[in-house]
Amino acid sequence: MTGKLLRIGLAGLGTVGGGLVKFLAERPDFAPAGDRAVVTGVSARSRSRQRDFDISSMTWFDDPVALASSPETDVFVELIGGSEGPAKAAIEAALALGKPVVTANKALIAHHGAELAVLAESKGVPLLFEAAVMGGTPAVKMLREAMVGDEVVRVAGILNGTCNYILTEMEASGRGFAEVLAEAQRLGYAEADPTTDIGGFDAGHKVVILSALAFGGAPSFADAEIEGLDQIELLDIKLARELGYRIKLVASAELSAAGVSVRVHPALAPLAHPLAQTSGALNALFIEGRRIGRIFIQGPGAGSGPTAAAVAADIADVMTGAVRPVFQKPAKDLVRFKAVDAAHRQGRAYLRLFVRDEPGVIAAVSETLAEERVSIDSFLQKPVSDGAGVPIVLTTHDAPESVLLNAVRRIAALPAVIEPPRMIRIARV
Amino acid sequence: MTGKLLRIGLAGLGTVGGGLVKFLAERPDFAPAGDRAVVTGVSARSRSRQRDFDISSMTWFDDPVALASSPETDVFVELIGGSEGPAKAAIEAALALGKPVVTANKALIAHHGAELAVLAESKGVPLLFEAAVMGGTPAVKMLREAMVGDEVVRVAGILNGTCNYILTEMEASGRGFAEVLAEAQRLGYAEADPTTDIGGFDAGHKVVILSALAFGGAPSFADAEIEGLDQIELLDIKLARELGYRIKLVASAELSAAGVSVRVHPALAPLAHPLAQTSGALNALFIEGRRIGRIFIQGPGAGSGPTAAAVAADIADVMTGAVRPVFQKPAKDLVRFKAVDAAHRQGRAYLRLFVRDEPGVIAAVSETLAEERVSIDSFLQKPVSDGAGVPIVLTTHDAPESVLLNAVRRIAALPAVIEPPRMIRIARV
Repeated sequence: MTGKLLRIGLAGLGTVGGGLVKFLAERPDFAPAGDRAVVTGVSARSRSRQRDFDISSMTWFDDPVALASSPETDVFVELIGGSEGPAKAAIEAALALGKPVVTANKALIAHHGAELAVLAESKGVPLLFEAAVMGGTPAVKMLREAMVGDEVVRVAGILNGTCNYILTEMEASGRGFAEVLAEAQRLGYAEADPTTDIGGFDAGHKVVILSALAFGGAPSFADAEIEGLDQIELLDIKLARELGYRIKLVASAELSAAGVSVRVHPALAPLAHPLAQTSGALNALFIEGRRIGRIFIQGPGAGSGPTAAAVAADIADVMTGAVRPVFQKPAKDLVRFKAVDAAHRQGRAYLRLFVRDEPGVIAAVSETLAEERVSIDSFLQKPVSDGAGVPIVLTTHDAPESVLLNAVRRIAALPAVIEPPRMIRIARV
Repeated sequence: MTGKLLRIGLAGLGTVGGGLVKFLAERPDFAPAGDRAVVTGVSARSRSRQRDFDISSMTWFDDPVALASSPETDVFVELIGGSEGPAKAAIEAALALGKPVVTANKALIAHHGAELAVLAESKGVPLLFEAAVMGGTPAVKMLREAMVGDEVVRVAGILNGTCNYILTEMEASGRGFAEVLAEAQRLGYAEADPTTDIGGFDAGHKVVILSALAFGGAPSFADAEIEGLDQIELLDIKLARELGYRIKLVASAELSAAGVSVRVHPALAPLAHPLAQTSGALNALFIEGRRIGRIFIQGPGAGSGPTAAAVAADIADVMTGAVRPVFQKPAKDLVRFKAVDAAHRQGRAYLRLFVRDEPGVIAAVSETLAEERVSIDSFLQKPVSDGAGVPIVLTTHDAPESVLLNAVRRIAALPAVIEPPRMIRIARV
């Protein structure tokens, strides 16, 4: 509450960067602790690009590393993105000089969070990244600060708004994946190259960060198992719905005696479940602690306003002078979790097959499952849709995932099974 | 990250206090920042009472003020409760000596938060109360820290687990209010004197605190309008359900050009709405910001484990050395909001009447509403249940609340209306 001026060096003037410039121009004195925050230096790809905000009073830097290192930058805000290159170099430069850093860069934190945390803590400065996960919804602060009086054992949620928008639209409009994706790209909800979102990598970066905060380990993107939306067909969305489920791209991290399992994959959530009811570009997260039980948060996962507000909240936190580890433990004590293999994971699954319409097929499928000791929970056979085969859908009871995968491989090899079976996990809720 | 010892003076050894003693005995080094927290002094009503945790290593104080003032107390934790008396005196003593204070006392903060904040900030020490609202669910931290990059315009939620448990049980079991309350008292979910919960005062304390955090004003319990559950009948729960709603005790605070409206009252929420789906002892809250939009959080609102975890998280925050205002602005700048009167509030309502089963009654009711310019949204007349009269239920469109209340007064005076009409607001969602 000193009323001093905090000079912000801002690298990246895209959607979120622009939102931050506008916010701080309007409310430089937003922070309760009383310091003023003013963007004094900026760096971006193009100086001359047309923008709907004014940067004429700010010093321009072609090189973000020079901006981060400038004696006129008190706090460095990195909104360039990318796990390597200028974003990383500039953050390292700022931290090495003992400057607090605020970033929205999930890829960078997921890949290099542990080493950057060591650097930040060796200099005693904060490295904050609220905006990296769930945009304006404060998942990072909840795990880093609010849950420290508990032991978190699981987080699970919807962390990618683009995928959730596409799934919501497919169900609502009855259109296929490719068509809805193309529309999302036209509307600016999906990137021209949608791989990061659709492939599950964006949600993967985010859940890797959350797992490190939740369980006190080093973020390790290499240990995350990631499956995207690419295989999801409208047929499965419709059949899941008939069985009382909605398909979502679920990101989860779970701590058990066997280690930590960090995953992103499509999953069926019961229609009445809060994850199933998280629609459009919303994000949602369950946090499960031994003492607290379950906390659920839901909110906007992206967008200029919400994400810039999260960056601003981090800047306000810098002003408080709080000193806490970047993750849940001091960085020097962070270890990489032991990843859990499929044999140690239990779960239920949805299986969809196309089979020839001939006697004995259902018997062959159910015998195979019985031999693998997978028991069937529900079964649905649809009338023939076209000449290509009959869709059969079933859901299983709990079984080790390795057993499920093996059963699917055997079913795929049955002569009457026309195309590779589609297995989608049923979310543990 | 200094590894020093923080000596906790703990006043109050009830459910939450006991939970904290057990937690810190098990995990004194729980805080990421690296200091150890140990309960070194305690005070409670009875020294000799049988307890399932060990206090023999702690110094006993008959007087909590002496505990707060003891040179061996670094941080004072107040879990006695009550807005006046020893809790207040002990907190004032600790703050006056420049000691950080952590409390779960909602009544005290709702009534005296502004003056205590002035004292804490004049000494530059934190006064933290995460456990005062929503138990283990971090509503206070979200509003105080995560939303500072936004302007919050409304919060609304379910903040009293006892009332929510009773409403959930009434609907599930079809039993009346008195019977379910008696059962809740036997099971320990409701106090012997349930007035604080059932009368809406507990939720009122909590939403007054949230309003101060959300809008940056002084908490002012006197300006809150509070209506409890006492008038809720099973009949209304059933009729609301037929209309697609569930009755909840909703606490809300809203900022508008006319001022701030802080209220607790029963309200109808659509069945599919997250508030309607918050059942049993769960708590839930919507936070609506101009930039971020809507954030929803849901979690346990009470209980030893969750609430003690929230107290522990506050102790961890003390260790970080963060300096921020107690509410959203420095305490010296906190002003009491202008309260909004009923004429400025718009809303929809559910009206339930008992009328004589004779011609012209419905015409008389609907004419009265038309004359007051209240338009009807839906209408339900039930077959005669007994000789006492016919229940009629209707929901209205949006109207100024003063107009609705006036219409209800006029309807009550109609000769065919047997008992005073029951008006329940429909939640704005």
